[in-house]
Amino acid sequence: MAKVTVWNEYRHERENESAKEIYPDGIHAKLADVLSDYGHDVQTATLDEPDHGLTEEVLDETEVLVWWGHLAHDEVEDEIVSRVKQRVLDGMGFVPLHSSHESKPFKALMGTSGTLRWRETGEKERLWFVEPGHPIADGLDEHVEVPEAEMYGEPFGVPEPDRLVFTSWFEGGEVFRSGCCYHRGTGKIFYFRPGHETFPVYHQSKIQQVIHNAVEWAKPVDTPPSRAETEFIGEPLEPFE
Amino acid sequence: MAKVTVWNEYRHERENESAKEIYPDGIHAKLADVLSDYGHDVQTATLDEPDHGLTEEVLDETEVLVWWGHLAHDEVEDEIVSRVKQRVLDGMGFVPLHSSHESKPFKALMGTSGTLRWRETGEKERLWFVEPGHPIADGLDEHVEVPEAEMYGEPFGVPEPDRLVFTSWFEGGEVFRSGCCYHRGTGKIFYFRPGHETFPVYHQSKIQQVIHNAVEWAKPVDTPPSRAETEFIGEPLEPFE
Amino acid sequence: MAKVTVWNEYRHERENESAKEIYPDGIHAKLADVLSDYGHDVQTATLDEPDHGLTEEVLDETEVLVWWGHLAHDEVEDEIVSRVKQRVLDGMGFVPLHSSHESKPFKALMGTSGTLRWRETGEKERLWFVEPGHPIADGLDEHVEVPEAEMYGEPFGVPEPDRLVFTSWFEGGEVFRSGCCYHRGTGKIFYFRPGHETFPVYHQSKIQQVIHNAVEWAKPVDTPPSRAETEFIGEPLEPFE
Amino acid sequence: MAKVTVWNEYRHERENESAKEIYPDGIHAKLADVLSDYGHDVQTATLDEPDHGLTEEVLDETEVLVWWGHLAHDEVEDEIVSRVKQRVLDGMGFVPLHSSHESKPFKALMGTSGTLRWRETGEKERLWFVEPGHPIADGLDEHVEVPEAEMYGEPFGVPEPDRLVFTSWFEGGEVFRSGCCYHRGTGKIFYFRPGHETFPVYHQSKIQQVIHNAVEWAKPVDTPPSRAETEFIGEPLEPFE
Repeated sequence: MAKVTVWNEYRHERENESAKEIYPDGIHAKLADVLSDYGHDVQTATLDEPDHGLTEEVLDETEVLVWWGHLAHDEVEDEIVSRVKQRVLDGMGFVPLHSSHESKPFKALMGTSGTLRWRETGEKERLWFVEPGHPIADGLDEHVEVPEAEMYGEPFGVPEPDRLVFTSWFEGGEVFRSGCCYHRGTGKIFYFRPGHETFPVYHQSKIQQVIHNAVEWAKPVDTPPSRAETEFIGEPLEPFE
Repeated sequence: MAKVTVWNEYRHERENESAKEIYPDGIHAKLADVLSDYGHDVQTATLDEPDHGLTEEVLDETEVLVWWGHLAHDEVEDEIVSRVKQRVLDGMGFVPLHSSHESKPFKALMGTSGTLRWRETGEKERLWFVEPGHPIADGLDEHVEVPEAEMYGEPFGVPEPDRLVFTSWFEGGEVFRSGCCYHRGTGKIFYFRPGHETFPVYHQSKIQQVIHNAVEWAKPVDTPPSRAETEFIGEPLEPFE
Repeated sequence: MAKVTVWNEYRHERENESAKEIYPDGIHAKLADVLSDYGHDVQTATLDEPDHGLTEEVLDETEVLVWWGHLAHDEVEDEIVSRVKQRVLDGMGFVPLHSSHESKPFKALMGTSGTLRWRETGEKERLWFVEPGHPIADGLDEHVEVPEAEMYGEPFGVPEPDRLVFTSWFEGGEVFRSGCCYHRGTGKIFYFRPGHETFPVYHQSKIQQVIHNAVEWAKPVDTPPSRAETEFIGEPLEPFE
Repeated sequence: MAKVTVWNEYRHERENESAKEIYPDGIHAKLADVLSDYGHDVQTATLDEPDHGLTEEVLDETEVLVWWGHLAHDEVEDEIVSRVKQRVLDGMGFVPLHSSHESKPFKALMGTSGTLRWRETGEKERLWFVEPGHPIADGLDEHVEVPEAEMYGEPFGVPEPDRLVFTSWFEGGEVFRSGCCYHRGTGKIFYFRPGHETFPVYHQSKIQQVIHNAVEWAKPVDTPPSRAETEFIGEPLEPFE
């Protein structure tokens, strides 16, 4: 089990009636409940707190950071983005969800645009496992259905994933790489597409299972750290003339 | 053949006597000569020109950008970094050399630190092809020797390469992933380690051959562009209820 | 342009009326015409010829081997399979099409089962480029439609592709990794899903364009060969005590 | 912890005096002791047993198979090779060590030659982690030294690893990809280079730690199985006309 911080910009659920109905205390509160039930040690943080709730002290106690942003990507301060990015390079797991494809920390870690095609029509999504033996597929079936989803379509502006776990089929004719693993520095990143503020996707038990599996997979490992600074080595390991 | 711009910060060769001796007109001039001899259409650009020589007009005429920076990474303006990054995502090839492992455009495209271990003792480097069939190995032998090199050692703070073409052995005991291919957006990137301002590495014909091969490999292909903006798709491709 | 051999088991088109109508001289003849029109130097070979038409002499003149098998995978002799496999490891390009996912040479080169889910209902397939900048996407749009296709669905029993160029959407609810690049030894392999004996898929110009692009991409490069035998190195490159 | 079977051809240690001295009960016995001390449930199997000790019953009780072969690769029966391969595709972990680079099951799973360059001079090897955050590097430092090693050099005739964990430096001038992760079917494979019958490499605690970590990493996950057979899907998941 891991020490998890669930971050949410927490705007939709205070302003939009249907979002409020599905996530009355915010998406972060729902995900915190879900991950606590799986046994994780969970705290939450939101955009409007000082430092967006992501002080060095909070991050010291965070092994995996789950991120949900949408309307207010631009309001996330660059200093906090750099802080989060450095923590990931130092080993913290990072799980950006759904509309976080264009969040600042995800784009800073990927080096790409994060762009895609989208349509909000409540169509069916079916996620197919294309790598069945992966730990993020633990305990699941060959595919997972989301009855009403916002469509995201290729091309997705990301580096080719280190491992591609899921590919989504959409009723309206598109496909999307919806579960993407990356390694950056000593940290692990899992972008997971499903989720929306007005469809109850995070109430689905199989989607919850994937997020739990992703947190388990993304936990730091006790290995030599990646370096924040290039290091001068005065003496060679092997003598030579 | 490609339209190439060779960019150089051009400081060492104006200030340091041994650099001046090896590259009297700058590293950019030497590389421009080499690539012209291979038949490419080459121009150069340097840090102290307006816009660092990288105006939109210059980039419009650039299919592959070769980059050499070292002392003055921080002097490259963020606006130009963003411009170069966007061009790469839009298809321009990018070939950062040697100490450009910590240049701003390379770090922005990788999302990582670019850090490494180093030692400047003029030791022997031997580059081994670990993927012999790759076009960047075209016309070369199983390994290439650099008689006097600055050592770069692992861990190298980069994403795992999409293809790893070379791994270097160093006399003093280290190894390094010294030829790394990446795809970002529709652009191709090849980081190539060899080179130094006071060792005549770019005078070696096999090293020149690799840089030529890399330029050929990195040329843009006429495919659908990557998107700078996420796109709303009003109508589904397939009708549904 | 490349020296291409198109191999076909050539059974359907002699036995099945609808196959005969679409490909009166066999799928190999159609593909040979297409590739010749693109300027390649093309010969054909079929299962019922001696050595299945794949003598050492024929393979000496083959830079890229295109393969179409379906009913008679088991009739391909193991000696010819080994011969083809060794040629690929030595640099020959290999482009297995459609039902060749379970052909012996493809399975021998992949080390996996090649299994998948399938349905033959003439449904719509839409191939999405998930790596737009790849040379196999040269000259094409963001997606290609096949109006009537046999469905192939995930999980596909192959190693994760070195580069995934296309993912297919199917009307009946599945997705499939339908354009997969691999490197084995010094040879390149491109598995391409579309094609069928009773749907006129190889009459579509965009599908033809992909096969041409794949042949161009898979051509051998003049690099050090992969080794058929492990080699003893008597003397170290570097002396030591 | 995992149910492990350590397989050894067990010839050197019965015939060669120096091998006998280092591994009096065979390499398998030593590795079994090591892995038992880490808490795994370990059995052994050897070439000269019926079915080479790898009956279906034994494999039913095996989550990870560690393999050591050298002199007698050819004596391993093809039926047992197929059995092992199918188990790996079905999820069993597989850890081939050192000279097993040309063992039949490894070659069958890779589809490549497994060839390399070698020299047996007892030179120093230094393994560098090139992916520090990987679980196989858990608890280790930036590099591991083997004081006396047989050299293996590139090019190594394998598919590019899904993750490359270690690269070795050799005193005599070569490099080698010495810790390579692969996924095939639902099984995980870790090729690990160190080891030799007449150098006491498996007596080194850090090498033991890597093998333990590899076993942990390679354990099966409870996901949908890969398919041994292609499956016909009569009805589409989505109705269409």
